[in-house]
Amino acid sequence: MSKVLVFGHKNPDTDTITSAISYAFLKQQLGEDAEAVRLGEVNNETKFALEKFGFEAPRLIDNVATETNQVILVDHNERQQSANGIEEVKVIEVIDHHRIANFETSDPLYFRAEPVGCTATILNKLYKENNVAIPSNIAGLMLSAIVSDTLLFKSPTCTDQDVKAGKELAEIAGVNVEEYGLAMLKAGADLSDKSLEELLSLDAKEFTFGNVKSIIAQVNAVDVNDLLGRKDELVGLLNKYTEENGLDLYFFIITDILNNDSVAVVVGSASEDAAKAFGKTLKDNEVELPGVVSRKKQVVPVLTEALSE
Amino acid sequence: MSKVLVFGHKNPDTDTITSAISYAFLKQQLGEDAEAVRLGEVNNETKFALEKFGFEAPRLIDNVATETNQVILVDHNERQQSANGIEEVKVIEVIDHHRIANFETSDPLYFRAEPVGCTATILNKLYKENNVAIPSNIAGLMLSAIVSDTLLFKSPTCTDQDVKAGKELAEIAGVNVEEYGLAMLKAGADLSDKSLEELLSLDAKEFTFGNVKSIIAQVNAVDVNDLLGRKDELVGLLNKYTEENGLDLYFFIITDILNNDSVAVVVGSASEDAAKAFGKTLKDNEVELPGVVSRKKQVVPVLTEALSE
Repeated sequence: MSKVLVFGHKNPDTDTITSAISYAFLKQQLGEDAEAVRLGEVNNETKFALEKFGFEAPRLIDNVATETNQVILVDHNERQQSANGIEEVKVIEVIDHHRIANFETSDPLYFRAEPVGCTATILNKLYKENNVAIPSNIAGLMLSAIVSDTLLFKSPTCTDQDVKAGKELAEIAGVNVEEYGLAMLKAGADLSDKSLEELLSLDAKEFTFGNVKSIIAQVNAVDVNDLLGRKDELVGLLNKYTEENGLDLYFFIITDILNNDSVAVVVGSASEDAAKAFGKTLKDNEVELPGVVSRKKQVVPVLTEALSE
Repeated sequence: MSKVLVFGHKNPDTDTITSAISYAFLKQQLGEDAEAVRLGEVNNETKFALEKFGFEAPRLIDNVATETNQVILVDHNERQQSANGIEEVKVIEVIDHHRIANFETSDPLYFRAEPVGCTATILNKLYKENNVAIPSNIAGLMLSAIVSDTLLFKSPTCTDQDVKAGKELAEIAGVNVEEYGLAMLKAGADLSDKSLEELLSLDAKEFTFGNVKSIIAQVNAVDVNDLLGRKDELVGLLNKYTEENGLDLYFFIITDILNNDSVAVVVGSASEDAAKAFGKTLKDNEVELPGVVSRKKQVVPVLTEALSE
């Protein structure tokens, strides 16, 4: 059997990077020739977690088909979020916690998706089911993924299973969850070394609501005013990108990780309708979203309902 | 939470019917309001298993959307094999052992597919993972599914996991696998109460290989000559159906369950090419397939390779 590459989605986040490492490690313990790789740059939050637990970032690959003929996907399944060349290789496993779409195989495979907050919560079960003990540094990575995806257990995507797994993993890793978790989130929310252009692409995902072609991007911040103070420049960039790419909506969410609120900067022909979807009117391209922290659970469904007509 | 309906594919077989019952029972033990239902007539093999272990056939439903708004699929995931109205309800779980295709959700769900011979082998794990003991009559149903899907562990689709699960379940059910299994397969292979028309539709699946629109049907028999003795009549019916439905190929497999061989009766413009795919020439619409018992593993891949150009 040739080498199996294990990777998460493009624009990698902490769950994607650490789940690739953690699952490749489990596979190695089970005797398989598995290697974790990544499809893009590692963000500051993930760097913080990797350094803390003594890991290097996985190797960056461009096209998967030039590397191997079999792969395992973690933290995603939709083709457009996956590696270049994915159509030319065989997907032998998927471990994920997202909706299933744009995914098709010609043969049966191991596909494990669960409606939990984080891929690492499922991996925690898989270690147990395979009777493999989790080393403390791997447990630290898995805990980091849960903290990241659930914003320290405060996101509405967080389930009881994520909380339980987080506690178990913190114990194995020997870290104080609150202390370490907040430090990691703050490292990710440190945007000082990023240009506005970089911020826009950091975690941007494409969606189509009926005829409304949209991008919904999200960044975490300790102080949202750092970014809102540069709003004119930001709106200029968003407008430029929206025009150049024929978008109807660019919805840029800035999430306050200390207070668990968000504010969105919105442009495009559908921007008034998007604000209205949240019962708001747009003020200078800005809409406040108190209590909103999850794109998946609190933004996409609202815009789907309002715009997909 | 409203009632959850649990069901397998159209043209139900033993795995589909018994997995619906066995998984609905597990869900009930976990406190959920789950009901097993079916999408079509129960075949003779399944009837034998249900009677042996004291079960009635699940309720037959027509359109799922008039019944509930949430469903669990077992033993299938492709939309065209599922219930009428499936687009209007929410699929909250899938337990399956087939390829994944024509399946899409708007929300995360529990999706558990594994490359094993039978859905019941996965259910056996789920009972353990949920710490629910399998009652002996449910174990009997699950064993029946494994015997059926693996032809008593002789099909190439059978994995070590299916053999292990089969042994465990036979022990719980208190039956002799070989004896009971062969009796069940023979009950299914008793075609004496079926017209030729019924036999053709009993387990017929549609496939498209490149431009070749095909049906591959399969029946189990104790003596293949029962059917081959009526070949002229059979070929007439296959030709009629092929013409009326614009097919290029009707590949009708008769599997000898005692010797684990098959013979196919083949019609349509692609029939010579189909025979050639197996290194044979067609003789009076007949092609011998020594050692072939699995449509999924031994017929579909061969025809895919030969005809999809």
